[in-house]
Formats: sequence, C-alpha cells, structure tokens
Amino acid sequence: MKKGRKLVGEVVKFYKIKDEIRILGIDDSPFNFHKDKRVMLIGTIFRGGSWLDGILKSEIKVDGTDATEKIIEMIRKTKHKDLRVIMLDGLTFGGFNLVDIEEIFKKTKLPVIVIIRQMPDFERIITVLKEINKNKEDYEFRLKCIKKAGKPKKVETKKGKFIYIQYIGIKFEDAKEIVKLSSTRSLIPEPIRVAHLIASGIVLGESRGGA
Amino acid sequence: MKKGRKLVGEVVKFYKIKDEIRILGIDDSPFNFHKDKRVMLIGTIFRGGSWLDGILKSEIKVDGTDATEKIIEMIRKTKHKDLRVIMLDGLTFGGFNLVDIEEIFKKTKLPVIVIIRQMPDFERIITVLKEINKNKEDYEFRLKCIKKAGKPKKVETKKGKFIYIQYIGIKFEDAKEIVKLSSTRSLIPEPIRVAHLIASGIVLGESRGGA
Repeated sequence: MKKGRKLVGEVVKFYKIKDEIRILGIDDSPFNFHKDKRVMLIGTIFRGGSWLDGILKSEIKVDGTDATEKIIEMIRKTKHKDLRVIMLDGLTFGGFNLVDIEEIFKKTKLPVIVIIRQMPDFERIITVLKEINKNKEDYEFRLKCIKKAGKPKKVETKKGKFIYIQYIGIKFEDAKEIVKLSSTRSLIPEPIRVAHLIASGIVLGESRGGA
Repeated sequence: MKKGRKLVGEVVKFYKIKDEIRILGIDDSPFNFHKDKRVMLIGTIFRGGSWLDGILKSEIKVDGTDATEKIIEMIRKTKHKDLRVIMLDGLTFGGFNLVDIEEIFKKTKLPVIVIIRQMPDFERIITVLKEINKNKEDYEFRLKCIKKAGKPKKVETKKGKFIYIQYIGIKFEDAKEIVKLSSTRSLIPEPIRVAHLIASGIVLGESRGGA
C-alpha cells in the first residue's frame, strides 16, 4: 500500500484523491459473433482525466470465462506500478465473458469501478445466460459475477446527466469522486472513453461512438 | 477551404490558429524486419494538444512505397472532416516506406508537418537506400521524398529543449505555432506522442517510449 491509501478490511481507504490519480481503463474491441473466436482487450493508463501514460493489450475468448484472469495478468505485468484504481467499460467483454471484480480486487488489491452508460436489463441477461451456457459451471460462474458486482448506483458526471457504476474495494463516495474527476471530456471517465476509441479504431479502421 | 484559412499559392494561410485545431497525427507500429511483411499505421485525431477525438488505422508494406497513398486514403475516408493539419512521426514508416509529403498536400489540401525527435543522418540514409533498392525507380522515389521534405528546422517546444520539423503547405511560423501549442505533455505534439503509445502498445502488449 502506498502513501495516501490503506487497505481497511475489504475497502481501500483513500485519504486524499489526487487529480492525477493513475487509472487503468479497460474496454474490448468490436467483433463478429459468427466468425471471431477471440477479441482484444485494450487498457489505457491515465493520469486522472487528463494525460494518457500508456497502452496495454490482451486477448480473451469470445463468450469465454478468461476475462478476469487476463485482466489480473495485465495489471501484474505492466511496468506502470503506480496504478490506484481499475475501471471497466461494463461487466461483460467479448460477448458473455463476464468479469469477477471481487477476484480482481483480491488478487491485485486495487479497487474496481464498472462504468455503465445505460442500465442493463439484468433479468434479460440472466435468461440469455441460461440459454447459451451448455455447462452448469459456466452459468453459475457468470451469475456469480453479476451478483458480486452489486446493484448499479447513479453518479452525476455532468449537470443533470447520469451514468451508473458498480464497484468493489472502495467506498461509494471515493468511487464517485474518482469517476467525476476523470470525466473531463464527456459523461464517462477518460480512461474508458479513450479505451473504447482505440479498441474500435484498431479493429474497424476508424473509431466509433462519441462516448 | 473553411473559415480561418485560405489556400494561397502553395501555402495554407492560417488567419488564426485555434487552441483546439484538429490535427491528425500518424505513427507506425514496431515490427520485425525478418518476419513481418506489413505494419500498422495509427492515426490519432486530436483537438490541439488536449482531447483525443478519434482513432484511424491502416496498413502498409514493410520497405514498400505505399505509405503516401495509404495516408491520403485515411484522410479521405475519415468521418472527421474538420482536420486542419497532418503530423507525421518522421518521414519513413515501416522501414523505408517513405512519405511524399508534397503529394499528400496536393491531394488533400492539408499542410503536413513532419516531427523529428532526433536529427537523422541523411547521408547515411541515402547510402542505405542505394543498397536496399533493387530497382532504380523505387530508389529515385525515396530520394525525391527526402529532398521534397526540405531541411529540418529547429522548434523549441519546452524552454531550452528542441525538436526538428519539416513541413509543406504552411508557413514556418504557423507550423511552429501549431507544434508548440500541441506539445502540452512532452517535447513532442500530443497527436504524435499518443499515436506512438497506441501503435507500440497494440503490437507489443504494452506501450514503450516515454515520448
């Protein structure tokens, strides 16, 4: 644990959140359900909502269960040892490759904040999960990931405009502060906006989404 | 020609350079001389030295002669129609795939600024070009690209710290102003610094170079 924060029970306590807090933001690339077996994960390392310090890349299986371990590996391998918080663009990557955010927090000691632009229909997701999961173990893993992430909470990032977040290893007030301070350019934090631009641009030839 | 600039003879005249002038910065990805036949070109669309608006991707041949046409295609195809200037991370991509900046300016009407971090040894480059070029036509094309780009000129981007630029379609004073206003985070303009981070991160798994 570095200066300015402390692991208290199951929450990292931030004594002071700096404007340039180092954030890793992760998004996946677009893919073709019928053709692609793998999809890219792009990580952006940001100083708060301002400067991009580095780019990480990994790959996961479409509809696999390896997103959690690949994200933990990304964090362990990077030379950027000053990361303070992880942000994810939603809880699912590469189709139904769900992320176990509790596991990421346990293994890396870094809080995780899931950024949700539009509230997902969890009942619908659980129904689809039942349909697509041939084996019971995968279904239960995915269901557990959703339950562990908790109920999404509203954060106002611009006046009168809201997004939702799920989080672990951090108090809601601290998570909210980090999300707000890093949403400098749009309604969502820069690490997520830029990860999305890069992941879509690399695969499609031009980035999409104003985000 | 849009408001605020005018094509006068062979130079775009900027009446006023805005802090958020739209810049396309281009760099290539690292590659293996022995193995790779193609290399990625990454384009970042920036508002001055602050916000990233979009990402473009193309591919060129290692040691080929298609960089110029691929860059022109990138500019023509993008939905970002408010670009005002093109920046390149050096004059060569993918080994000896040289860029004809005059051709880019002619075809797109956008000025081109080549960003040079360290002064290249042009005599050495010309010697190598002679050695590697099996056909006379390719050699002459590459030599012409170098000559057209002109003598690199010094620009002080931070107090006492210099980079060099080559340019076409723009007055030196305007090119200098754009380079300086976009070098917000380091000695080189943000569009080039970030294109480099992305291009290296995607290929190597983690970006390299402080740049």
